[in-house]
Amino acid sequence: MTLAEKRPLHQPADLPDFDAYPIQHRITVANARGRGVSVRWSDGLQSTYHVYMLRENASDPVTTHPITREQAVQLIDLPEDLTALAAEPDEVGGLWVRWSTGGESRFHPGWLRAYASNAPEDLYALPNRILWDVGLQSNLPVFDGPTVLEGGTEFGRWMIALHVHGVAILEGLADSPDVIETVPARIGQIRPTNFGSVFDVKSKVTADSNAYTSMTLPVHSDLCTREYVPGLQFLHCLRNEAIGGESQLVDGFKLAEYIRETDPDAFDALSSLPVGYYNKAADTDYRWDAPMLQLDDAGNLREVRWSPWLRTPLTLPFEAAERLYRALRVAFRLGEDARFQIQVKLKPGDLLGFDNRRVLHGRNGYDPRTGERWLRGCYVEREELLSRIRINARKLRAELVGGS
Amino acid sequence: MTLAEKRPLHQPADLPDFDAYPIQHRITVANARGRGVSVRWSDGLQSTYHVYMLRENASDPVTTHPITREQAVQLIDLPEDLTALAAEPDEVGGLWVRWSTGGESRFHPGWLRAYASNAPEDLYALPNRILWDVGLQSNLPVFDGPTVLEGGTEFGRWMIALHVHGVAILEGLADSPDVIETVPARIGQIRPTNFGSVFDVKSKVTADSNAYTSMTLPVHSDLCTREYVPGLQFLHCLRNEAIGGESQLVDGFKLAEYIRETDPDAFDALSSLPVGYYNKAADTDYRWDAPMLQLDDAGNLREVRWSPWLRTPLTLPFEAAERLYRALRVAFRLGEDARFQIQVKLKPGDLLGFDNRRVLHGRNGYDPRTGERWLRGCYVEREELLSRIRINARKLRAELVGGS
Repeated sequence: MTLAEKRPLHQPADLPDFDAYPIQHRITVANARGRGVSVRWSDGLQSTYHVYMLRENASDPVTTHPITREQAVQLIDLPEDLTALAAEPDEVGGLWVRWSTGGESRFHPGWLRAYASNAPEDLYALPNRILWDVGLQSNLPVFDGPTVLEGGTEFGRWMIALHVHGVAILEGLADSPDVIETVPARIGQIRPTNFGSVFDVKSKVTADSNAYTSMTLPVHSDLCTREYVPGLQFLHCLRNEAIGGESQLVDGFKLAEYIRETDPDAFDALSSLPVGYYNKAADTDYRWDAPMLQLDDAGNLREVRWSPWLRTPLTLPFEAAERLYRALRVAFRLGEDARFQIQVKLKPGDLLGFDNRRVLHGRNGYDPRTGERWLRGCYVEREELLSRIRINARKLRAELVGGS
Repeated sequence: MTLAEKRPLHQPADLPDFDAYPIQHRITVANARGRGVSVRWSDGLQSTYHVYMLRENASDPVTTHPITREQAVQLIDLPEDLTALAAEPDEVGGLWVRWSTGGESRFHPGWLRAYASNAPEDLYALPNRILWDVGLQSNLPVFDGPTVLEGGTEFGRWMIALHVHGVAILEGLADSPDVIETVPARIGQIRPTNFGSVFDVKSKVTADSNAYTSMTLPVHSDLCTREYVPGLQFLHCLRNEAIGGESQLVDGFKLAEYIRETDPDAFDALSSLPVGYYNKAADTDYRWDAPMLQLDDAGNLREVRWSPWLRTPLTLPFEAAERLYRALRVAFRLGEDARFQIQVKLKPGDLLGFDNRRVLHGRNGYDPRTGERWLRGCYVEREELLSRIRINARKLRAELVGGS
């Protein structure tokens, strides 16, 4: 008598995690091949699974803790020479396997397909980023704040805009000081920094940052001084009556791609020569050295660290300094170039969110004698956004499964 | 009349930051060479400074904001063809420069020396890490908690131990629940996560992590599921009466170096093939893919991500999976090898701190019926530790300057 005969097929508890996996393809043929199990799917795809990958993700309560759903069997406790002795499709297109150790396991077809090494679909793929220039001015992702806060489709669209464009505005929120503590937290944990969990951007007598003066701020990313540059920044507008104080936004990835195309030497300098950053304060001294443009192994942009005025004194040898200074001036000038900038004058109740590791922000100087300007800000990591987007997608999948 | 004649020499306000720079070497000869200024120091060292590096770090109030000490002049506002027309040592061994724009600047000799590209000394160098194995058991960095909290030399030694050994214990603290909120905060900001700002490690009925059961936990790093793995972890012991529950610690860098030496193929697999990690929870889905051993450009270890039981199902093609699984089993077995582990049974009032991106931690299972076990934990970033160490060193330098 096999497991398949003993209990109902593929309940949620038959999964090694809390996700939901709609069954869109079924296994029609399965073969045990020693260290691997090969299967053929109903759409013709052939996939091979390593025995350890299957065995350590079995959903039985000895392998997967029934409450935490974390692994309770350790990889090193599985035998060195583990093999699959037999494999068969089960009645709903899942997989049944008998192990060389005597036991057997059954695997959910939706889960198996999601983790096939060669599946053409990807459950966790996100829409591609869309890079932008001044053209976004007429097409800014603006959402009705109260509707977004209802948590339905608009909440999802807001988060996707933050990922795709790296910027989105909520309008029509209250102009009360607690909005910044509650709305971004709908995505995830707020990240405190040396400026606090929430910071007030206003002109202060004893400013510990140029941001807290009424000066013009060239476009920049915040906290390049940190190894971990905050991923998302939110700025909630409470007052904006002073003359001046408009916000500028620039897609740093777009700028970087423009530099890559038009000035390869500058791009190479900016993506390979370290720039040092430090905060200047009496009681903290954060420093971090990194190239201004961070690429992944494939050469794609991962992050820009763009802080014109918090750079440590350059200690590169003279020739490298000459090269990097030229590249920095090319970059910083493009940052102030109208072709790449959009302008926003935030109104009380607006909440501006942007990807601080991609989208640069700046502001015009303003005259504090002409009126008050008060923004409240906080940071949330990119990974909080990705987690929340995934949970949203998981709920949709659960509805699909529930309705099938 | 030059600046040097007009005002007293080298006050603290003559620096572009809040640091202190004892004068240990003086400039004896200076030459303006167009885009560079060359100097000879009293110890014979010859250094060249780029004109932009000098000009943008001048301490006058137009260049450096007198309150924030951040740059108020932007790099792109300096002329393209800026040169130095004249340069001379000043009366205390600093540097005086006249610019092609007509102005002049003066630079503090301690500051100039600190930022020479070729200075043999490094103001911000930290002591080297010391890698360890079971031998550390008889030589564990243990400090008297109350003395450390007085903030003097012992506070500095505690922080250096956290950096050098990646582990340190404070003894004799109160066994009250608020210790975890106050003591690590002496170093810097506490980093909240999905488990809260402070988390309670005890056996819970509805555990959302294996850590919150009474299970044995193999050695691991926390939160490998995050792009930003927390740098330091602190665990404060309130109760530890149950039978079992001893903590294990392993220097992950030592392990990694051992693997590099004894099994190059495993090392290569672990430092190049991505491992996926995910948290398993109903309402968050953090995922991150990265090799388990993170190297810097020079091949030195930067971080280990060691989480045996939070790995996502491996989707590598079969041959790569076979290779990575072999390497993972080598690594995880070494993690449980007594040659590398130290054992600690925490007492109420002990505060264990360790570098979560280097030092692995685990615990023996325990029987909750034999007594209570309650630890409270939190995370603080590595960069908070570095900042606090720098501020400590800065204070010592300020005393040196004050006493000279």
